[in-house]
Amino acid sequence: MANVSVNGYGTIGKRVAEAIGKHSKLKLVGISKYTPDQDAKIANSNGFNVFVPKDSMKNFESKGVDVAGSVDDMITGSDTVVDAAADGKGIQNKQSVYQPKGKNAIFQGGEEADVADVSFNARSNFEDANGKQFVRVVSCNTTAYCRMIKPLLENYKIKYINAILIRRGADLSDAKGSALNAVEWKAHSHHAHDVQSVLGDIPMTSIAFKVPHTHSHINSMSIIFGDGAPTKDDLIDLYSRESRIAVLNTASTSAQIVEASRDLELPRNDTFVVSLLANTIAINDGGVFFSFSVPQESIVVPENIDAIVAQSGIMSKQDSMKFTDELIGIPKIKSSLEKIFA
Amino acid sequence: MANVSVNGYGTIGKRVAEAIGKHSKLKLVGISKYTPDQDAKIANSNGFNVFVPKDSMKNFESKGVDVAGSVDDMITGSDTVVDAAADGKGIQNKQSVYQPKGKNAIFQGGEEADVADVSFNARSNFEDANGKQFVRVVSCNTTAYCRMIKPLLENYKIKYINAILIRRGADLSDAKGSALNAVEWKAHSHHAHDVQSVLGDIPMTSIAFKVPHTHSHINSMSIIFGDGAPTKDDLIDLYSRESRIAVLNTASTSAQIVEASRDLELPRNDTFVVSLLANTIAINDGGVFFSFSVPQESIVVPENIDAIVAQSGIMSKQDSMKFTDELIGIPKIKSSLEKIFA
Repeated sequence: MANVSVNGYGTIGKRVAEAIGKHSKLKLVGISKYTPDQDAKIANSNGFNVFVPKDSMKNFESKGVDVAGSVDDMITGSDTVVDAAADGKGIQNKQSVYQPKGKNAIFQGGEEADVADVSFNARSNFEDANGKQFVRVVSCNTTAYCRMIKPLLENYKIKYINAILIRRGADLSDAKGSALNAVEWKAHSHHAHDVQSVLGDIPMTSIAFKVPHTHSHINSMSIIFGDGAPTKDDLIDLYSRESRIAVLNTASTSAQIVEASRDLELPRNDTFVVSLLANTIAINDGGVFFSFSVPQESIVVPENIDAIVAQSGIMSKQDSMKFTDELIGIPKIKSSLEKIFA
Repeated sequence: MANVSVNGYGTIGKRVAEAIGKHSKLKLVGISKYTPDQDAKIANSNGFNVFVPKDSMKNFESKGVDVAGSVDDMITGSDTVVDAAADGKGIQNKQSVYQPKGKNAIFQGGEEADVADVSFNARSNFEDANGKQFVRVVSCNTTAYCRMIKPLLENYKIKYINAILIRRGADLSDAKGSALNAVEWKAHSHHAHDVQSVLGDIPMTSIAFKVPHTHSHINSMSIIFGDGAPTKDDLIDLYSRESRIAVLNTASTSAQIVEASRDLELPRNDTFVVSLLANTIAINDGGVFFSFSVPQESIVVPENIDAIVAQSGIMSKQDSMKFTDELIGIPKIKSSLEKIFA
């Protein structure tokens, strides 16, 4: 049993905290809040211990938030801290808190790779996190890329990959985000480099387009193989066997997939899975070309849970992934989506 | 000297009519209007003869539009009609008017390929249009694809092409267009097929994403070569020599390119050229990956002019393309954009 706290209770933190709270091998010490906003009260109503900076306790209490103690107390009482702070804040927390206190930490993909001893994707390199003090779960699209690429690597020789991301314009709770007026692009985006931080030196280029839409990230990949490329049936077979990829045949807009998640009454509409848009698959001489949809807000949740387990060595890769999947309902989500979009 | 009329005076028609009006080897008979809206008055103020359906003449005149005669008169007095009607209307016009009257016509890419004897891109297959009664100028993105692919075909063996289009949400003067709420995709879009209608049987797949943005179409292409792929310098050299491609190094949003066209005081902000985003070029083992921006409203204007010239055999390919380029200011536009984004 590992004592785990979640430092930062935003889009990722709140989801990871709930999953930890239900996990029989992990004990949620509590979550931290730095501003007394609605999320602090949501954490209270979820029954979580809410820890706040020592000198903000009175302020939080005056706003009606039940405070369990200081952030410092929380981290002292934890074996591992899931750092779900804003991008770039994780490295500061590492230096000022986790290292001095000798605590383990799980960082998010908004941090640079060198914040941690290893960049992590459960399907790709679970074992590499074992015994490491600092583990970084790669970002949402990189997580999806790893889930798509790793099974291919196990069966084929990849020559190189070109990846295109059509980013949603903003995070869910953001009031502002992308330009309304234009498409912005980031040539040679971090994603290729981040995939390499997990999967090793795969030749890969990625470009990210930021566009004013609000339903999921949409990605396309053009993959060239060294010899022996998969057929369409091979690809569908391969991905159908992956627990965290749903193979959808008939979806034609991102809104349809999100609407299905509402109709399925999934908590927060979270699907956790990559949706492969199987009708986009094209097979070329020696290559494949396909697109997939990424639920940015939830895809890294199972990865964070597995990262904690991998780090502490509580379970094997296979056991942990299966346990995490069942914990948050992934098998049912996958089969439901595949049925709806059969 | 060919007598040319423009049937339909919308986004494409108004631009093509102006270019014909300035062309020393073509005589603009006039343009047609079917509704007495603002465009009819713009055509009047441009000094164009405005032809309308016979039974609408009084209606147009009562709205203050100067009417030169009936659409039937206009077509009777023309050697060639540029059909710039709404998508799918061209085939009706062909059957009900152009064929019975034995007139030549130039159709737009919104029509199916079989509307015409040949699908046309000046750079790619100018000579194929010579003497053909019906010529179809391919659509804006297909035109860009042909401009990008043809120079490669002349120098390299292409194995296959994967193309991705991030469509703007609506035409310029449209009040409604794409979903605001989602990304819509069209797997295996018409573009690959349309490129093949011009360039022959190149293995190619395309996907189109429709996204709520409003500044240019943005495209990415992943191209695999059979042997001997270009380097980044090769690509930049090759495209720099193309009169209708501008090679931009530093643009990072579509709005920047459109803003430059305003600052350059280009009529209607029209650039006519494909903007290659050179900083997106990635070279893989045997392949290239790059992105480019397409000014949907103007890119087919020079192609329509060249199509008329090619059809009637007034000039050679080289002479016509050069003449058209000078006519609408392309050499200056290309060099200005390349300087601004050097």
